[in-house]
Amino acid sequence: MKNLLNPESIAVIGASDKPDKIGSIILKALLKYNKPLYPVHHSHGQIFGIKTFPDIKSLPKNTSLAVIATGAEKAVAAAEECAKNGIKMLIIVAGGFGETDTPGKLLEKKLKKICKKYKTRILGPNTLGIFQPPENFDTIFVEHGDRSLAAGGGTAFISQSGSVGVEALGLAGNTGFGLRGFVGLGNKCDLDELDFLLHYAKDKAATCLAFYLENITRAREFMIQAKKVSKIKPVVVLKAGTTEAGAVAASSHTGRLAGSDRVVNGAFRQFGIQRVFDDEELCDAAKTLATLVPAKGNQVALLSPAGGYGVMGADYVESSFQGPGLKMAELEKETMDKLQKTTFSFASCSNPVDVTASATDEIMGSALEYLILDKNVDIIICTAFFAPPAITDNLVNVIASKVKASAKPVIVFTQYGPFTNRYLLKFHKQGVTGFPSISRAVRAARFLYERSLILNDLQNEKPKGLEPDTIETENWLTSLKKPGLPDEFEAKQFLRLFGISVPDSIRISPGEKVPAVDVNPPFAVKVCSPEILHKTEEQGVMLNIKSSEINKAVNLMQLRFPEKDILLEEQIFFKENEFIVGAINDPDYGIAVMAGAGGILTELYRDAAFRLAPCSEQEADAMLDELYAAPLFRGYRGINLDKSMLARIVSIAGNASLSLGEKFSQLDINPIVFSQKGWIALDVKIILRQ
Amino acid sequence: MKNLLNPESIAVIGASDKPDKIGSIILKALLKYNKPLYPVHHSHGQIFGIKTFPDIKSLPKNTSLAVIATGAEKAVAAAEECAKNGIKMLIIVAGGFGETDTPGKLLEKKLKKICKKYKTRILGPNTLGIFQPPENFDTIFVEHGDRSLAAGGGTAFISQSGSVGVEALGLAGNTGFGLRGFVGLGNKCDLDELDFLLHYAKDKAATCLAFYLENITRAREFMIQAKKVSKIKPVVVLKAGTTEAGAVAASSHTGRLAGSDRVVNGAFRQFGIQRVFDDEELCDAAKTLATLVPAKGNQVALLSPAGGYGVMGADYVESSFQGPGLKMAELEKETMDKLQKTTFSFASCSNPVDVTASATDEIMGSALEYLILDKNVDIIICTAFFAPPAITDNLVNVIASKVKASAKPVIVFTQYGPFTNRYLLKFHKQGVTGFPSISRAVRAARFLYERSLILNDLQNEKPKGLEPDTIETENWLTSLKKPGLPDEFEAKQFLRLFGISVPDSIRISPGEKVPAVDVNPPFAVKVCSPEILHKTEEQGVMLNIKSSEINKAVNLMQLRFPEKDILLEEQIFFKENEFIVGAINDPDYGIAVMAGAGGILTELYRDAAFRLAPCSEQEADAMLDELYAAPLFRGYRGINLDKSMLARIVSIAGNASLSLGEKFSQLDINPIVFSQKGWIALDVKIILRQ
Repeated sequence: MKNLLNPESIAVIGASDKPDKIGSIILKALLKYNKPLYPVHHSHGQIFGIKTFPDIKSLPKNTSLAVIATGAEKAVAAAEECAKNGIKMLIIVAGGFGETDTPGKLLEKKLKKICKKYKTRILGPNTLGIFQPPENFDTIFVEHGDRSLAAGGGTAFISQSGSVGVEALGLAGNTGFGLRGFVGLGNKCDLDELDFLLHYAKDKAATCLAFYLENITRAREFMIQAKKVSKIKPVVVLKAGTTEAGAVAASSHTGRLAGSDRVVNGAFRQFGIQRVFDDEELCDAAKTLATLVPAKGNQVALLSPAGGYGVMGADYVESSFQGPGLKMAELEKETMDKLQKTTFSFASCSNPVDVTASATDEIMGSALEYLILDKNVDIIICTAFFAPPAITDNLVNVIASKVKASAKPVIVFTQYGPFTNRYLLKFHKQGVTGFPSISRAVRAARFLYERSLILNDLQNEKPKGLEPDTIETENWLTSLKKPGLPDEFEAKQFLRLFGISVPDSIRISPGEKVPAVDVNPPFAVKVCSPEILHKTEEQGVMLNIKSSEINKAVNLMQLRFPEKDILLEEQIFFKENEFIVGAINDPDYGIAVMAGAGGILTELYRDAAFRLAPCSEQEADAMLDELYAAPLFRGYRGINLDKSMLARIVSIAGNASLSLGEKFSQLDINPIVFSQKGWIALDVKIILRQ
Repeated sequence: MKNLLNPESIAVIGASDKPDKIGSIILKALLKYNKPLYPVHHSHGQIFGIKTFPDIKSLPKNTSLAVIATGAEKAVAAAEECAKNGIKMLIIVAGGFGETDTPGKLLEKKLKKICKKYKTRILGPNTLGIFQPPENFDTIFVEHGDRSLAAGGGTAFISQSGSVGVEALGLAGNTGFGLRGFVGLGNKCDLDELDFLLHYAKDKAATCLAFYLENITRAREFMIQAKKVSKIKPVVVLKAGTTEAGAVAASSHTGRLAGSDRVVNGAFRQFGIQRVFDDEELCDAAKTLATLVPAKGNQVALLSPAGGYGVMGADYVESSFQGPGLKMAELEKETMDKLQKTTFSFASCSNPVDVTASATDEIMGSALEYLILDKNVDIIICTAFFAPPAITDNLVNVIASKVKASAKPVIVFTQYGPFTNRYLLKFHKQGVTGFPSISRAVRAARFLYERSLILNDLQNEKPKGLEPDTIETENWLTSLKKPGLPDEFEAKQFLRLFGISVPDSIRISPGEKVPAVDVNPPFAVKVCSPEILHKTEEQGVMLNIKSSEINKAVNLMQLRFPEKDILLEEQIFFKENEFIVGAINDPDYGIAVMAGAGGILTELYRDAAFRLAPCSEQEADAMLDELYAAPLFRGYRGINLDKSMLARIVSIAGNASLSLGEKFSQLDINPIVFSQKGWIALDVKIILRQ
C-alpha cells in the first residue's frame, strides 16, 4: 500500500504537455510531491522540465507506482508491460471497462489476469485515483477544493464513484473538512474497499473511515473486518441502492445486484458500521466523528440567541424517526441559576437556552461553559449568530476556547447569509465542528450518540455459541419425501432437531386412515404440501376440531386435496401477539435472520429487523429491541412475552439455516407464538435452492 | 395595509445620525424608497439631508406610517402620540414587551389599548419590520442579503421570529430566492399572520405564502382562510414546537401553549397547508412552489452524468418516510431509444438516466428534452455537474432553454465545490429552480406533488353535512347520574343518539337484582363507573358469560365493586382488527377528531390521523387512507372492512363532540370493531370539562 499511497517514485504512462489532457493534469498535480517522477513519452525529451522515458521498458528499476493515463485498450497493454518490468502497483484512470459493454468487460478481465499472473496490484480501472493531502500526493484530475480539505481532522474517504467522491469533497471543503486521504475505487478489478479499510485502520493519522459504495465486493469479510476497526475508529458507509428502484440503478451502474436494504441496515448495526444515505450526510458524519469524542449519553443542551432555533432544534432532538433517540437534557438547578445571573430577566434559562438577541460574546461564552459543566448534559449544540448587535467576530475565539477546554462534544450551528461558509471555515480552523443548519447540527449529535452505542455494544460483546453439528441436517435432507422440497411437517421436524418447539402432529398420506391420536384436543387439520403456498386462502386449514370430529375433518380435507398429505396437529392457544422469525440467503451478505411482528402486522407496519447469521443471542436481543412491538416484552398493557427465549430461537434459526449451507434459500416461521409451553412455531416454511 | 406595505409617507420616530443606532439604520434603508420621509428628532434640523420634525405633533397630516425605533417605554408614549395625531399604521421595533417579564407584558397591554381606542394598527412590537424588494421599501435593521433576494419568484415570507426570518432569507438568498415581501410579526399585539395571509392572497405579485409561526393567534380562522387562499396559491407553514420538548420551548418563547402536533398535521392537510419543519425546508418549499407548476402526478425521472447520484436520488424518491409518495417513472420505449441514440453504448438509458461523465452540454440538453416529452414522466430532476471534461458553462443556458419550453416542472441539482452557490444563482437568474443536494431536489419534487394533491382535494371538495341539533345533547347532559361525569353506559347512549351502534346493555345499580334479559348470549359483565379508568386491569371485565351464568357473574362483580353500577352487555364477535375513533378539544384549534388502529396497536405503532371537526365524510375517508392499517379496507389478506361506514362514524363523532361545545374535553371509542352488524363501539369514554 505504501507503493500506492506514499510511493518512492512514480511513472506516468500517457504523460503529456497539452493542458487539457489527463496525462498532463496528473503530471502537474504530482509535481508538488517531492519524489522522483518518470513521465513516459515516446518523443518528448522532457515535459514540465522533467526528463521523460521513451517507453515502459526503459523506466528505472524499482519504480514504486505507475499511473496509467491512456485510453482503455492502450492501458491494458501498458499495464502488462509495467507488470513485466516489475512495477508492483498501478493506477488505471481510463473508463471504458466493465462499466460499459462486452468489449469493455473483456478488457477488464485481462487486467484481472495481469494481476494474478504478475502479482501486480491495480487500483481501478475507471478511477479518479489517490489524494493524500498531508503528503501532498495527488493523482486526481478534476477540481477538488484541495486547499480547504487539507487542514485538521483525519477522514479517509474511499469512494466507488469518482463523481460522488469529488463532488462531496468539494462541498465539504467549503465549510472545512479534514482529509487524511481520498481513494477512488473505480471498477475494483483488484483493490477494493476491504484493502483500504485494513490500510487506514492501521494509519494513525486517519481518525474516521468514510465509504461511498454501490456494492461491497467481499461483503462478509468487509463486515467482519469493519467490526474490528470500529473498536478503534468510526466506520461510516453510504451504501447506495437502498430501495428496489435504487437497487435496479445500482445494478445497471456497477453490473452487480445491490444487497437487500433491510439486511444492510441490520448487518451494519451488528458490525458497528454507521450508515448514511447521501453524500452530504456522509461528509457530515465523517467530519463529526473524525473531530469530536463520542457522546457519553443522549442528553442534548441547545444554546442560541434566537428562541425560534431553540424550538426547531428541540423538535429535531426529540423526533424519533431519525436514528437513535436523543433527548433534551433537563438542566441542573445550579446551571439555570448561573444562566439567569449572567443573562437577562427575559432570557430563557431552561433547555433550550435562549440568551436573546441582546447577548454579547461573553454571555454566549459563559452560557456555553455552564452547559458544558452541567452533569445532566452529554452534548451541546451552540448556535452562533453574528447578526445580533452586541455580537462580534470574536465570538469564534470565545466559543473555540470553551470547546478546547471541554471533555464533552460541542457542535456549532452558524448561519450568516452569504458569509456562512466563511464563518464555518473560521470555526474549523480553530478546531470547532460546525454546520450551516440546525437539522444538520442535531444529526451530527445523533452520529456521536450512535457511536457511543456502538462502542458500548462492541466492548460488551459476548462470544457466540458454537455452530451446530450438520450431520442431523444431512440426515434430514435425505429423508425428505420430495428431495429438495420440504413440506410443513418436515420443516417443523427440522426446527425440532435444533430444539425449537412445534406442535405435536401426524402426517397422513393420501388415502391413509387416521391413526390413533394421544394429543389433547382441539386439533388443527391442514393440507401439507410444498406446492400450496397460501393454504388458508385455498381452504386448506380447519381449526377447533374436537376428538370426535377428527375423522370427518381429515376426510373432508382429503376430498379437497386428494393427492396431498394432510397434517393433523395439536392446536395451540396463545397470547394475542403473533411474531415472525425467518432467514434468507442474501446474494451479497449470505444468510441473515429476521424477527418481527407477525401476522398482518408484518406487512402493514413492516416491523422487522435483520442480522447476519451466526447471530448471537445477545445480538438477537438487540434486534428484538428495535421492533416497535418491543414494549410487549416489557409489560406493556400487562403483556410480558419472554424476550430472551425468543432471542434464543432467532439465534438458533440462524444456526439451523447455516447448517443447510449453500442449499439454503429461505426460512419462514410465521407465526411463532407465546403459549403456556413457551414460544412455539405454528407454521413453518423452508425453501431450498434447487 | 397599503399604509404599512407601500406607504405614501413615513415618519421615523427615534431617527438618528449615529451609524450604529437602529433609528439611523432604518432611516438609511428608507432613503431608497421614493416617498416623503419625516424623521423626528428634537434638536437636529436635518439628518442625512432630510428635514426633521421636532416632535410627533408637528408631523404632516395624513402621514401614512410611523416607524417607532425607540426603547420600549418611549415607544408606548410615541405610539399614543402618533395615534392621537391620526397616524393609522405603526411599526414598533423595540423588544422588552410581552416576550419578557411582567413590566414588559403591561407595556404590551397598553399598546393593545391604544389600537382599540384610536383604531390605529400596530405591527410588532419586537418586530424586524417590513421588506418589499419590488417597491424598494425596507425597514429592516440587520443584514439580509437584499440583492440576491430581489430577482424573480414571488414569495411572501411572514415570520414571527425576526432571527429566523432574517437568517433563513440570508441563507436562501445565497442560491437565489424571489421575495415579494418580508414581514416580521414580532409579538403580534395587533396585526398577525391572518392579516398578512389575507393581504398577500390578493397581491398578484405574491405567488407563494410562507410562514414561520410559533403560535397561531386565531388558529381556526387562519385555517379557514388559508384553505381559501390555497385554492389560488400555495401556503407553506413552519409551525415550530412540534414535540413535547418543542412545545415547552415555544411556550417559554411566546407565552402560549403550542398546539398538539398531530392535530396540526391533520389540520394542515385538511385545510390545504403544506407543512415544513425547519427554515431551510421552508425556503426550499417557498422557492419551489413560487416558481414551478404543480406536478400532474408522482412519476419522477432523474437525469445525471454520474450514476451514483442517480442511485441516491432513486432511493430518496422511493423512500416513503418523507411525505407523499413519489415513484420512479418507467420511461417510454421511444424515450429510451432516443436516449440510446444520443448518448453512448455504456450510458444507462432507463430511469435513473446516466449519460455518464463523457456527456456534453448538448447530450444533457437532448436527454432533458426527451424526459420532458415522455408521457410517463411528471417531474424531472436534472443533475448539472460542471466537472465532467466535455461540460461547459453553457450548460446553464442549454438547461434553461429546455426548462422554459417545458410544461412540466424541472428541478436542477447542482454541486461544484466552492462554486456551487454561484451556479445556483446563474440558474436562478435564468428562471431555473435549483438545489445544492440531491435530497433537497427530491424534497422539492415532493412539494410539487403534494401541491397537486391539495389542489385536487380542494377542487373536488363536497359540502359538509349540517351540524346536528343540540337539544338531545342537552337532555343527555341533564340525565347524567353524576353531573358532568358520564359513565360507560351513558357515553354509549350518547353515541346512540347520533346513530353510532353500541352493544345492547343494561345498567344495574348497587344491590339491584339482575332483570330479565332478551339478548342473545354470550354476555359481557363490566363494572360501570367514570372513576375506574382501567377496568380490565382492575378485574372489572368478565367475558363469554352464558345465559345461565349471568346472575353468578353479576353478583361476583357486585362483590368486587359493591358501590358501583354493573353493566350487563351483549358480547359482540368481530373480525380481528380493532380500531379507535376519538376526539379532543385542542386549546388552539378546537375540537379535532381522530381515527387509528385500535387496541395495543394505537400506542405501539402510533397509527392514527387527525382532522378538525366538523370533518366531512370525505375528509374522514382521506384520514383513514393515511393509516398504515388502510390496506385492511382494500382487501388485504382477504380483509375488507367497510371504510365509508367508518368514515361516516368519524364524521359523526366530530359532530357529536361539537354538540357538547365548550363542555367537551375528550371522547374515546376504543375499540370500535367491524361485526356482522357493521361497525360497533365496544367501549366508550367521554370526559367533559369541569
